[in-house]
Amino acid sequence: MTFKVTILGSSAAMPTVDKHHSAQILNVSEQFYLIDCGEGTQNRLMKMGINPLKINSIFISHLHGDHIYGLFPLISTMSLMGRRTKLKIFAPRPFDEIMENHKRYFDIGTGYEIEFCEVRTRENNLIFENKVMEVYSLPLRHNIPCSGFLFKEKTLPINIRKDIVDRLQLGIAQVVALKRGEDIITEDGECITSESVTYIPYQPRSYAYCADTQYSAKLAGLIQGVDLLFHESTFADIDKALAKRTGHSTTTQAAKLALNAGAKRLLLGHFSARYSDTSLLVNEARDVFKDSFEAKEGHTFEIQRY
Amino acid sequence: MTFKVTILGSSAAMPTVDKHHSAQILNVSEQFYLIDCGEGTQNRLMKMGINPLKINSIFISHLHGDHIYGLFPLISTMSLMGRRTKLKIFAPRPFDEIMENHKRYFDIGTGYEIEFCEVRTRENNLIFENKVMEVYSLPLRHNIPCSGFLFKEKTLPINIRKDIVDRLQLGIAQVVALKRGEDIITEDGECITSESVTYIPYQPRSYAYCADTQYSAKLAGLIQGVDLLFHESTFADIDKALAKRTGHSTTTQAAKLALNAGAKRLLLGHFSARYSDTSLLVNEARDVFKDSFEAKEGHTFEIQRY
Repeated sequence: MTFKVTILGSSAAMPTVDKHHSAQILNVSEQFYLIDCGEGTQNRLMKMGINPLKINSIFISHLHGDHIYGLFPLISTMSLMGRRTKLKIFAPRPFDEIMENHKRYFDIGTGYEIEFCEVRTRENNLIFENKVMEVYSLPLRHNIPCSGFLFKEKTLPINIRKDIVDRLQLGIAQVVALKRGEDIITEDGECITSESVTYIPYQPRSYAYCADTQYSAKLAGLIQGVDLLFHESTFADIDKALAKRTGHSTTTQAAKLALNAGAKRLLLGHFSARYSDTSLLVNEARDVFKDSFEAKEGHTFEIQRY
Repeated sequence: MTFKVTILGSSAAMPTVDKHHSAQILNVSEQFYLIDCGEGTQNRLMKMGINPLKINSIFISHLHGDHIYGLFPLISTMSLMGRRTKLKIFAPRPFDEIMENHKRYFDIGTGYEIEFCEVRTRENNLIFENKVMEVYSLPLRHNIPCSGFLFKEKTLPINIRKDIVDRLQLGIAQVVALKRGEDIITEDGECITSESVTYIPYQPRSYAYCADTQYSAKLAGLIQGVDLLFHESTFADIDKALAKRTGHSTTTQAAKLALNAGAKRLLLGHFSARYSDTSLLVNEARDVFKDSFEAKEGHTFEIQRY
């Protein structure tokens, strides 16, 4: 079962020739979730060979243009491509008003329903759920209401060791009981504990997207043990006063957050265009958190089953 | 003196991997005028090495997303780049309302003034003028209010032949009179006609941008003798019923318009994504109007002095 994120854009507010505004696509079991949607997102989806019609839902962190300007063109293209299935858009208010105004002024009659799902940016809520995944909002500290998102595979059903079932010739009722966590007594009077014969097939995987935000110590508690963490790091450590003033983080702060959250890997991005050599920024984070990587456009980061 | 247009995007409403929404940049004497502004325009400006701060004014033909979605990101970037000079935006109403709403919902305090200049889409008006150029609105026939634009160099001052001035030792007053079109009598009693000694240094050049529109016979009269004509040709000749229904033109209609307008060259674009081989579309136009060319992205079409 796939669990991977592809970076479509990771510039800060000022894009450059080859760094575009924020957008990422998360593929969980071939269901696609778009996270933020800066200008040109549809073009980069096409370049990556991802059909926009495969997008299940869209998660918008906040209503700054560099995270949303690509949304209306994408909505329009989905309509021209013949989308009929509902599209859920998770975003803070007043996204609903913006959408209504947009429909009023622009001539886009979409052939599919768009459902607005409000994200309360000060709360840590379960906002989305399907068979395999849950998504939680993560309160962030930016200069306008802003939410991160934690994507978590659901805890998987317990499996039972097949060799035990065969050896003891267990019936269905016994297997079900063991999987439920109950112990059983076999016809031979043997006590079989659930713990001794069952296992979790693999650990549920998780991805947290945290942009845009100042350093927030509380955040670490909400994403404990996350497999992959994207945390904005607009500025180098030396510019931390500027980071605070503008509602952003430094490389070192992102790394500290990853450390405190017990994250397995850290992706850095949303770098200010002022830094021409981004490897210096990554190295700065690595001094604090070794497994830090740049969220480079076009790169895919997969979380393997373990 | 430069007079050239660079194609930044020329797809129809459905973009493809390498065909972007409508945008062109006209360079007249190193003053830059942006015509329409589809998604990703700022990126393609950067790719062409054109500094967005050099843009003098923006001309928006109509309020369909594929002609305007790149405008707000561009406005934002200009602000981040430190623009201080006023930006004029020519567009049909209710662009002013859209702009106001945008400012209200998005956090873009621009450091420069944006002046909205209404384009009345049913009128053929002089809407812009500076020392070297005039711009006229051109009523088009689309399914929402839509205007084309005619960019015309101003008629240049008459020059006087330097050999005549030297031979006859003409004074300033005599030169001024001849340049004004008056005849003079020299001290030797010789009559010098203005016509015989003056000349126009070169013909004023012109460019007409006509998208989106159905075929409009009247349009030819408004752009007579234009040097370079961009006329949308969304559809092939065989799809003319569809063109009419959707407020667009065919290749053959664009060519017929160029012929009737006495245009020197025709640029074709805004091709529907349904046609994979665009050379067939260009050839269709060439059967009617020989000097037809595809408005390919990244290509520049210069009008030489003559």
